[in-house]
Amino acid sequence: MHPIELETYLHTFIPLTKAMQVSVLSIEPDSLVLGAPLKPNINPHQTVFGGSVATLATLSAWSLLHSRLVSEGLQATLVIRRSSLEYERPIKTDFTARAYMSSVQQGEEFVEIFKQQGKARIEILSEVACEGQCGVRFKGEFVVLKAH
Amino acid sequence: MHPIELETYLHTFIPLTKAMQVSVLSIEPDSLVLGAPLKPNINPHQTVFGGSVATLATLSAWSLLHSRLVSEGLQATLVIRRSSLEYERPIKTDFTARAYMSSVQQGEEFVEIFKQQGKARIEILSEVACEGQCGVRFKGEFVVLKAH
Repeated sequence: MHPIELETYLHTFIPLTKAMQVSVLSIEPDSLVLGAPLKPNINPHQTVFGGSVATLATLSAWSLLHSRLVSEGLQATLVIRRSSLEYERPIKTDFTARAYMSSVQQGEEFVEIFKQQGKARIEILSEVACEGQCGVRFKGEFVVLKAH
Repeated sequence: MHPIELETYLHTFIPLTKAMQVSVLSIEPDSLVLGAPLKPNINPHQTVFGGSVATLATLSAWSLLHSRLVSEGLQATLVIRRSSLEYERPIKTDFTARAYMSSVQQGEEFVEIFKQQGKARIEILSEVACEGQCGVRFKGEFVVLKAH
């Protein structure tokens, strides 16, 4: 899946991503990077609003799985079950969220189980950073089901 | 603090809350309710986007502490440290997030410790619901520091 294609999809079907000015910076089979500028995501302390951080992290993980499934030619419904965020330091400039799988095998097993059983569960990590330094760590558990 | 006053503050200083059309429905010393419509928060499944859910929950907890500190006449910097969300069921209509303290004592102790030590830590719960049924449970840990 091409970054522009995913960006258009997000802006069309998730209007909040347009308000946040989310951009898709890169897509690999096992990692994906989203970006967003400070201005539409600012809080009263002139840093990035916690809600925008949580959203970009959640969206990066969802997008990684979505693009992986599309690239495998699989039709699926992707649902988040739980997530946690550790806010380590404030994010003061334009920022990115890099979602990744813990290993190449994790992605392969996830796709294989989904193909065989029509359902699979996976944990995705994401790091929200600015100026090269991680500010917030995200962990999310997703379930993928056959699309009806 | 009056709901309209908080709503104006949020829309002015956190532009994402305006894009989400967040409204402040009620403010009590130990609980606070925010609302948002489905349309600006929709996802490709025609339910509420997980990022909007995480944002409204985080914002409800932050707003409860902010309004409590303002009503006590305290100047403070309020920072989120960690959060977790359990997505129990999809949210299909306009939705609310009700943040609350676990007891009256919890709020009183939090204020007292902050007054004495210039710093305090607190855990706030929030439930995101639609049509009267809880869809997502949020837990967030916040630190409040003396404003410089």
